[in-house]
Amino acid sequence: MKHYYKLDEWNIIEQGFNADNNEISESIFSLGNGYMGQRANFEEDYSGTSLQGNYIAGVYYPDKTRVGWWKNGYPEYFAKVLNSTNWIGINIKINDISLDLAKCSVKQFERVLNMKQGYLQRSFVAVLSNGNEIEVNSKRFISMKRGEIGTIKYSIKPLNFKGKLEITPYLDGDVMNSDSNYDEKFWDEISSEVKPYEGYMMLKTKKLDFHICTYMTYEITKNGEIIKPIAEFKQSEKYISNNVLVHCNENDEVVIYKYVANTSSRYYEKDELIGITKKLCSKAKMDGFETLLKEQADAWEEKWKESDIVIDGDIPAQQGIRFNIFQLNQTYTGEDYRLNIGPKGFTGEKYGGSTYWDTEAYCIPFYLSTSQEKVSKNLLLYRYKQLDKAIENAEKLGFTNGAALYPMVTMNGEECHNEWEITFEEIHRNGAIAYANYNYVNYTGDKSCLGEFSFEVLTAISRFWAQRATFSKSKNKYVILGVTGPNEYENNVNNNWYTNKIACWTLKYTIEVLNYLSQNEPERLSELKKKLNFKDSEIITWNNIIENMYYPCDEELGIFLQQDGYMDKEQILVSELDKKHLPINQNWSWDRILRSCFIKQADVLQGIYLFEGEYDTDTIKRNFDFYEPRTVHESSLSPCIHTILATKIGNYDKAYEMYLRTSRLDLDNYNNDTKDGCHSTSMAGTWMAVVHGFGGLRVCDNKLILNPFIPKHWRSCSFKITFRGALLNIKFNDSILQIQNENDISVNLSIYNSDHTLNGNALLEIPIQ
Amino acid sequence: MKHYYKLDEWNIIEQGFNADNNEISESIFSLGNGYMGQRANFEEDYSGTSLQGNYIAGVYYPDKTRVGWWKNGYPEYFAKVLNSTNWIGINIKINDISLDLAKCSVKQFERVLNMKQGYLQRSFVAVLSNGNEIEVNSKRFISMKRGEIGTIKYSIKPLNFKGKLEITPYLDGDVMNSDSNYDEKFWDEISSEVKPYEGYMMLKTKKLDFHICTYMTYEITKNGEIIKPIAEFKQSEKYISNNVLVHCNENDEVVIYKYVANTSSRYYEKDELIGITKKLCSKAKMDGFETLLKEQADAWEEKWKESDIVIDGDIPAQQGIRFNIFQLNQTYTGEDYRLNIGPKGFTGEKYGGSTYWDTEAYCIPFYLSTSQEKVSKNLLLYRYKQLDKAIENAEKLGFTNGAALYPMVTMNGEECHNEWEITFEEIHRNGAIAYANYNYVNYTGDKSCLGEFSFEVLTAISRFWAQRATFSKSKNKYVILGVTGPNEYENNVNNNWYTNKIACWTLKYTIEVLNYLSQNEPERLSELKKKLNFKDSEIITWNNIIENMYYPCDEELGIFLQQDGYMDKEQILVSELDKKHLPINQNWSWDRILRSCFIKQADVLQGIYLFEGEYDTDTIKRNFDFYEPRTVHESSLSPCIHTILATKIGNYDKAYEMYLRTSRLDLDNYNNDTKDGCHSTSMAGTWMAVVHGFGGLRVCDNKLILNPFIPKHWRSCSFKITFRGALLNIKFNDSILQIQNENDISVNLSIYNSDHTLNGNALLEIPIQ
Repeated sequence: MKHYYKLDEWNIIEQGFNADNNEISESIFSLGNGYMGQRANFEEDYSGTSLQGNYIAGVYYPDKTRVGWWKNGYPEYFAKVLNSTNWIGINIKINDISLDLAKCSVKQFERVLNMKQGYLQRSFVAVLSNGNEIEVNSKRFISMKRGEIGTIKYSIKPLNFKGKLEITPYLDGDVMNSDSNYDEKFWDEISSEVKPYEGYMMLKTKKLDFHICTYMTYEITKNGEIIKPIAEFKQSEKYISNNVLVHCNENDEVVIYKYVANTSSRYYEKDELIGITKKLCSKAKMDGFETLLKEQADAWEEKWKESDIVIDGDIPAQQGIRFNIFQLNQTYTGEDYRLNIGPKGFTGEKYGGSTYWDTEAYCIPFYLSTSQEKVSKNLLLYRYKQLDKAIENAEKLGFTNGAALYPMVTMNGEECHNEWEITFEEIHRNGAIAYANYNYVNYTGDKSCLGEFSFEVLTAISRFWAQRATFSKSKNKYVILGVTGPNEYENNVNNNWYTNKIACWTLKYTIEVLNYLSQNEPERLSELKKKLNFKDSEIITWNNIIENMYYPCDEELGIFLQQDGYMDKEQILVSELDKKHLPINQNWSWDRILRSCFIKQADVLQGIYLFEGEYDTDTIKRNFDFYEPRTVHESSLSPCIHTILATKIGNYDKAYEMYLRTSRLDLDNYNNDTKDGCHSTSMAGTWMAVVHGFGGLRVCDNKLILNPFIPKHWRSCSFKITFRGALLNIKFNDSILQIQNENDISVNLSIYNSDHTLNGNALLEIPIQ
Repeated sequence: MKHYYKLDEWNIIEQGFNADNNEISESIFSLGNGYMGQRANFEEDYSGTSLQGNYIAGVYYPDKTRVGWWKNGYPEYFAKVLNSTNWIGINIKINDISLDLAKCSVKQFERVLNMKQGYLQRSFVAVLSNGNEIEVNSKRFISMKRGEIGTIKYSIKPLNFKGKLEITPYLDGDVMNSDSNYDEKFWDEISSEVKPYEGYMMLKTKKLDFHICTYMTYEITKNGEIIKPIAEFKQSEKYISNNVLVHCNENDEVVIYKYVANTSSRYYEKDELIGITKKLCSKAKMDGFETLLKEQADAWEEKWKESDIVIDGDIPAQQGIRFNIFQLNQTYTGEDYRLNIGPKGFTGEKYGGSTYWDTEAYCIPFYLSTSQEKVSKNLLLYRYKQLDKAIENAEKLGFTNGAALYPMVTMNGEECHNEWEITFEEIHRNGAIAYANYNYVNYTGDKSCLGEFSFEVLTAISRFWAQRATFSKSKNKYVILGVTGPNEYENNVNNNWYTNKIACWTLKYTIEVLNYLSQNEPERLSELKKKLNFKDSEIITWNNIIENMYYPCDEELGIFLQQDGYMDKEQILVSELDKKHLPINQNWSWDRILRSCFIKQADVLQGIYLFEGEYDTDTIKRNFDFYEPRTVHESSLSPCIHTILATKIGNYDKAYEMYLRTSRLDLDNYNNDTKDGCHSTSMAGTWMAVVHGFGGLRVCDNKLILNPFIPKHWRSCSFKITFRGALLNIKFNDSILQIQNENDISVNLSIYNSDHTLNGNALLEIPIQ
């Protein structure tokens, strides 16, 4: 795999202007602060290929569903991540010619994402059609400290002429979603005002009544001195701009500092929006670009202190993991339980919705280790607040008595997705949501959530499983029919091992929580039982299902079977396929994929990863060695799980191969789809690959176990984990070191390679802070 | 089930104007002549709910596919049956008020479809908002003798006033398909001209360049005398009209006779269209309405002579079967091998495409028995001519070496449909196409088709089966994975018994045909082998598959299993379901339907019907008694097969229940979807239910067997069958009468009920003509 971006430990660097790669770079160089975000579109007009994207967290649109053939149960609407006001715009004209990189000759183009300090920088020299040559330097960021603020410093220097320079900062609300189902525009203007040097625009979504307000102001300097040229202004529907004319000589440097505030009715009263936005924007301008930039660097320093992973001796691996951590921190900060982590974060609009099972299965472990526990707790609360909708959703599918099926894709708790094989059948997601509660308790030792909300969520999910499992007379066992497992290259299968496993696990854990509450919070429990109309007979049913669940397996091979009939398929290995067939999702028709033995992503192995404690290494190895050669990893969520299990069974080459694939998925555009946006949620999987894989961290029954084993060519790998109340077991060369922590604690772990041992090749240093 | 239409042996009669039922009646009262057809829209303007529909056979539009989530292999386009120029339009104004049944009071409304003579009649009295009362009588038909001609007699009588009557005959080409995927219009105007008393319009489809030309002329009489009022004319894009003003007194009768010719570039050169159309239209006008009507009655008399079924003693049953036969004869006449039988015929646009497996599985038996053999042969040729496309289609799905997968839905041989579970997986259709060739030879004794085209079709289909079946090491058998059987309430199942059965049958029959050709047409065979690059090793492979195919069954129950794992489902009978759940396709989400045991339509039973000769009555009974109570018959193709098998095992109550359901499906709007159009292809199934069911006709190894057993309350049931070279075995009260026919022969069969015996309750009279 060739590296398009320059290898660097702290920066992503693109050198030379490559229009064909522009949409990919727009994704890679995205900025965000958890509250809003944007793709790396250019400030000035660009007529080449580009996917415009500015997003405000939680502001979405219920786009009417599009299908070829309607099936009962499909949702009427699909919540789309909403492209909103383009606030970065600064058009430039030089001697009446527009600056447009698609229409001039571009030299010395460089784009840098400074991950350490959290800004995007771009510089180039453009030669216009009239021969005028200018140098441009722009720097922008979205403030981690002031959620609503974005700032741009844009400098222009004529290199070989003197003349007119026109600068047009603007706000443009006349934007579309490129994935709109019916080419509709989603915004109406409420009001706008523009005058010299400032202006605002307030828009409202055509449905759901979300208001957003954007305020802009700016300042212009010439050779470092503030100047105040006359500003003409323009206003049309969903558009405001200023236009200033500056006369300059060769080598004069003209700089525009643009300050923008974006607010939404999710956080402020509608009638206060304009006033507040103006105030925030003015304050930003008053404090000035350099102050804001300093704040930004400080804020990122804090983030990195908590979440950085330092890999010494492997720059691609180092750059990959930092890029992943950087994007995760840009996407979600955990302060608002109504927000979640979209599969593309703020880097694109594809897939819509903001919440998939990725959150529980991949992101929560990351935030549990690298953030205060309230961050993960907010993610749990998000689902708890949507429990009613999940119950409604299950009712639509024929379930009763408070059974809940959480949606596959959602924004507000309602199902968005509309492929029956996914929407209705990929029910294992329910299990991941249950598991996240367990994971949280395990990591934090905080059991207050059990009575507070977990028991309600768990009961509703368990009721779903109890109704969804049916008794097969012919097998004399409970079965779960017609599902899609994590491997989406199978649909409508019977007895997906992973689904059956996580269903029974949920039932067991719910009973465990019930027993805990019964012993520790009996009053709360009886309150809850009443609220939920909970009958003790339900426990009998659940135990019956737990004891009599059917799990497909192949005795001869000693493996769990992905589903009934898997061994009837033609057994071919990925390595036996001619390369021209890969990726199969771009080369094979859907039916051919379905009836092949090829696996999109960890499925049985996903279960083994979650319940690793139940299986001995030989069992894990047999399953890994069977399934890994049949897995095409065409989901971004796959290689990280394989990394982790590969380290567990000592298959280090495979682990490293899979690690590069997960950590540099977007940087190296492995799946040829980065232009749609980055794979934000799978980035948490990359973190897991390092910490759970090479670091060997396991969390099991409120114990942390570390069993590190880093790649041979890494000199060291260091990271910090935060946990509470857990017992830390560090296993190294067969010795076990135990540390008991009573309170919140952070541990910096550094794993050093000692070249000479084959097993336990890591030295561990643990300075407890 | 309440009968909305009046019971009558030869007519469908609607009494009273019921706007809510209008779209259903528009379907029921549709007209057609195999060359064109139309829904029973009103001639005059109607602002109420209506689905406009005029269709020209074979003129279609490749509408861009719409899906929510694209899957590899989906076709880019879906051939839509194309709504074309509205040629029936005659607007009426009375003293400046438009006649619009949605906006006036309607009395004595009656609509009659005269099936014996093939015309549609409508009469009513309308009281307009100004109190003016008029009587209207209209009669129209589409000529069975002159394919391009349609004629209308429209009479208006003022009942309580004298005044102005404005009559506006028009052609309107500005029409849409209501099922257009992107609300596009599909027609462009090429040219039009209008003058007093005549005009034409030529349109062209925006893609594929189909031209259609419509010519209209008309004549007006007042109290029987031709009058020539001044005709004003109007022309705008895709619209021409005349407007005549007639002054009349109370009780004057004013009649407009409108004559229209519709031609298409499928049958004439484009530059000749206008001239030819004008000529055809003028000739029709010259011959006059009454002459054309007489021709129509004569043509229908001929049709009825060949295809009528007379049921004495059961008017609902009689009306039902005649309605079905009438619609079948309106839909397809078998003169053009490029045409086929759309699922809605000319009665609606839903589903698009013109060809489904319905043609081979249901329609061919009807046309074999009731028409000259060229009609069925043209249907076989249709597929033969599309073999290249079927091979291309299979190639797209990864098949090689001339394997063919015929499309699920097509117009020109290319796949139209885009649900993966149907398009890619419902591959049993391939078997029906093979079987139709066998059926044809069986009925007609004409083996010339084998070398002419059947062997090529059969080989291509067999090659598909041989590649599609894979060897399961775990079963030590060949399996066919990931299919959808005839029962579309299961998707992506393994080893659908019917599919495995018909796949092996195809292989066997292809080898049989090969052997026949080798003995009888060795030169042609070697020519064909060369053309097809046929290797004898293929036969070895095929035999290997035939001998080692896996067929799921339940030994204990003694039944064939619909697919692997069927017995794992919760076994509930339809009778145990609360009525509120039915039809499940309107009340249950798709996943719930899929994982239930409920069966949409005959599946195992479809196979038993086709291969009945292989099974003893006990086996048939066991399977019928198992599957029938689990079948919801939510496909129009289901009850007919159940009728036939029910008669076979002597379950006459069930047979009669199923017969009414199939024969009055549209008349009684069983499935609540007749407004989309009639279920044209299932009408052939109704015919099968009588002839193969109550008549007991079986065709097996070139023998015809009759084993009649009609419902007790029928006095008799008579029909005619046409066949050649077959041995006719008539079984009655255990005696067998054999008649050998060497040539084409028609037999009129009358089955009389003798009330007193329980078995063999029919007397048979066979006058050989």
